[in-house]
Amino acid sequence: MARPIVGITMGDPAGIGPEIVMKALASPEVNALCRPVVVGGADRLRLAGRLVHSNLEVRAVEAPSGQGAPPRIVDCVDVGLAPDELPWGRVSAAAGEAAYRYVERAVRLALDGAIAAICTAPLNKEALRAAGHAYPGHTELLAALSGTREVSMMLAAPKLRVIHVTTHLGLLDAIERIDPGLVERTILRGNDALVRAGIARPRVAVCAINPHAGEHGLFGRGEEETKIEPGIEAARRRGVVAEGPLPADTAFFRAGRGDFDLVVAMY
Amino acid sequence: MARPIVGITMGDPAGIGPEIVMKALASPEVNALCRPVVVGGADRLRLAGRLVHSNLEVRAVEAPSGQGAPPRIVDCVDVGLAPDELPWGRVSAAAGEAAYRYVERAVRLALDGAIAAICTAPLNKEALRAAGHAYPGHTELLAALSGTREVSMMLAAPKLRVIHVTTHLGLLDAIERIDPGLVERTILRGNDALVRAGIARPRVAVCAINPHAGEHGLFGRGEEETKIEPGIEAARRRGVVAEGPLPADTAFFRAGRGDFDLVVAMY
Repeated sequence: MARPIVGITMGDPAGIGPEIVMKALASPEVNALCRPVVVGGADRLRLAGRLVHSNLEVRAVEAPSGQGAPPRIVDCVDVGLAPDELPWGRVSAAAGEAAYRYVERAVRLALDGAIAAICTAPLNKEALRAAGHAYPGHTELLAALSGTREVSMMLAAPKLRVIHVTTHLGLLDAIERIDPGLVERTILRGNDALVRAGIARPRVAVCAINPHAGEHGLFGRGEEETKIEPGIEAARRRGVVAEGPLPADTAFFRAGRGDFDLVVAMY
Repeated sequence: MARPIVGITMGDPAGIGPEIVMKALASPEVNALCRPVVVGGADRLRLAGRLVHSNLEVRAVEAPSGQGAPPRIVDCVDVGLAPDELPWGRVSAAAGEAAYRYVERAVRLALDGAIAAICTAPLNKEALRAAGHAYPGHTELLAALSGTREVSMMLAAPKLRVIHVTTHLGLLDAIERIDPGLVERTILRGNDALVRAGIARPRVAVCAINPHAGEHGLFGRGEEETKIEPGIEAARRRGVVAEGPLPADTAFFRAGRGDFDLVVAMY
């Protein structure tokens, strides 16, 4: 089976991204699992490689190679934009613009089918904003660049997967935003992602908004009943195995011991 | 050093309290650390003891004994009120009233100095309410019985202690309730409790309300700046070593690795 090509965005060129990427690409496991290609600035990547005493060589390429890079070579789709004299650790519009362009190029490569997945090194939101790109995070940036109207972020660890109904919102705004439709769509989105990843019938836990899930109306303003339960029921009617709304501490405890494949968190 | 006398309320007599108490009192560690005395119904306790095949004998007493009970004897300050025919697992006003009276008696014993601490077995809030005592939990009940105007609950595990600024409130009500004075008083209350417990200069982490602590106004409605920061500053002026507002995930992660003696949680 061919190893998938994974595009790695270099992140803010003045940040820790370039060094992290050069260290990660020395790992035999990474190269055994995929054919990595960096999307960033080749010169900057070479500089970072020297800083971390990497013995890998950086090769600037126009596009990902179907064969993958030869041993000890790091392929970098060279978007440039990161001059050697850019000081490390300094927030700047130039670095923010570069980081933005790396993500933009990676998205185009993904949409064209040239890479199978994107892995992102950290960017700096302040630098991004200084360059005129006001996004609260990668998630929203990727949604905008791919023309996706509604998007969810899923976090995955070996024993726990979590998908969020709201992200990067204050708590009052999050509670206002949550409604049965959004809950249903988030459950379906997470469920479908896991089905595609090979879990035939994911077991989904849906968190509550209030402590103790409101304890049947003892506290809260009925958010569980009006905002969450109808969303869970709608997802169930579409065949999803979903349980909830559960108090968040119960949901995570039970997921940790293996009861669930996915936790749907409200905020 | 004399072992302190600890009063154990028997909880709802139709619930799991009596059995749990009889099992726990078989532990040599419990009896090595304190002189336990149950506050409840002696007959019910005997019945529960037979159910769990306990070889301890229950002795009804009027008041805790200064000597503690002899080996294999469980002392029970007999408030009564739990007839043998009370069915197990059934919610009733009679059982709720009994559970209430056990706590009431234990509080009186504590305020009189006859016991040094109270340990509570579970009661049933529905049964409590059926008996005309509408309290969301032990915390509020203990506050009312002891005439305490404002109270906090602290949870303690070997590596983690948590005190709550709000409890048993829906999230919207909790956010509304939180203000600098309440934050300050909760920090001081937790700090003083730890000082009394022998930690000279407790290190206190104070959680934020919003995800990412609002990320400097990027999201949220300024709750961190208006509701929490002034409370932390006021506590610091009174000599408390307090850090925050920290995103809750950061606060708990750092507390778990040993950075803090106490986490002040908002909800």
